[in-house]
Amino acid sequence: MKVFQAIEERRAVKRYNAESKMLPGDFDKIMSAAVLSPTSYNIQHWRFVRVTDKAQREKLKDAAWGQEQVASASELVILCADINAWSDRPQRYVANTPQETQDMLLPMIDAFYNGKEQIQRDETMRSCGIAAQTIMLAAKGLGYDTCPMVGFDREEVARLIRLPQGYVIAMMIAIGKAEQPAHSRGGQLPLSEVLSENHF
Amino acid sequence: MKVFQAIEERRAVKRYNAESKMLPGDFDKIMSAAVLSPTSYNIQHWRFVRVTDKAQREKLKDAAWGQEQVASASELVILCADINAWSDRPQRYVANTPQETQDMLLPMIDAFYNGKEQIQRDETMRSCGIAAQTIMLAAKGLGYDTCPMVGFDREEVARLIRLPQGYVIAMMIAIGKAEQPAHSRGGQLPLSEVLSENHF
Repeated sequence: MKVFQAIEERRAVKRYNAESKMLPGDFDKIMSAAVLSPTSYNIQHWRFVRVTDKAQREKLKDAAWGQEQVASASELVILCADINAWSDRPQRYVANTPQETQDMLLPMIDAFYNGKEQIQRDETMRSCGIAAQTIMLAAKGLGYDTCPMVGFDREEVARLIRLPQGYVIAMMIAIGKAEQPAHSRGGQLPLSEVLSENHF
Repeated sequence: MKVFQAIEERRAVKRYNAESKMLPGDFDKIMSAAVLSPTSYNIQHWRFVRVTDKAQREKLKDAAWGQEQVASASELVILCADINAWSDRPQRYVANTPQETQDMLLPMIDAFYNGKEQIQRDETMRSCGIAAQTIMLAAKGLGYDTCPMVGFDREEVARLIRLPQGYVIAMMIAIGKAEQPAHSRGGQLPLSEVLSENHF
């Protein structure tokens, strides 16, 4: 599927065929695409949880105020991030670059994040957003629908997935075969209302 | 271009052909795709600034510590968001839905965001991240390269683009024709290190 078609046809689908499974390999294809998403300074701080266990799915559905797709979709991915990844062996993120690049980048990473809690937090949400769209468009490209979700009890989901200290949950994505198409778009703002030239 | 090819070939390109202009219509195609990106409750809170003025580009380049692509790329988009969009005439976001859906959604939007500053802020970064990847993949699909950027003086950029009170800047994206390809990937973490099953 072409890029623009995937962007245009991606919609938040809520009703899935609960019997449908992904073709073998497709989940790996999607997640292998996800980790090609850019992160600032290549810190790759997203951490994904794929929930395959049915009982766990049911508990997560309860934590998401009963939203069916949490249990019925073929796959459920919870997008989390390690807030402190920038300081956790950052050599890993630049390992294939020349030594002089490493010598320049590593102090830059430290200077950018160290002690700056809002910037660290913003980065987790931004990177998970970028990866989320990669997942949704990759899934669409393989013929699946998705539902991005933020409506859930974060503390309960954190408990269920044993979220480590210093990690945050950004969102969830359900992936599967639509049983009902999405509703038509709810009300699009005209482009002119959200796009300015040179300044606001 | 196919979705997976665009995902795989998208890289952060820093050196652009400063003489190259986008084909007429391509910028609109990219931004018309961007606004099809999902937002929670369809609040569409991203606000984009396209910087076409050369002098403004030079000032932004200075605010981005001299990074060339800010001035040399064919296009520069600054991704901002209105933190309070959820409360600004939210009927707009659900205008095309049945009355009973509106009656359900509008109180949900208020309950989800009202008084919750961290959730409001997280949402701006997450939505801008999602839209950013739409922009980067759409651009790639049309044969352009991009560079997502967070390294700039936020206060100075806010001043230059006259950022309204209550708005935040998430990131910038330079778009254009590569003069030099990106360096090879700096150091990818194996998928197994960032993907867990059922829980951490």
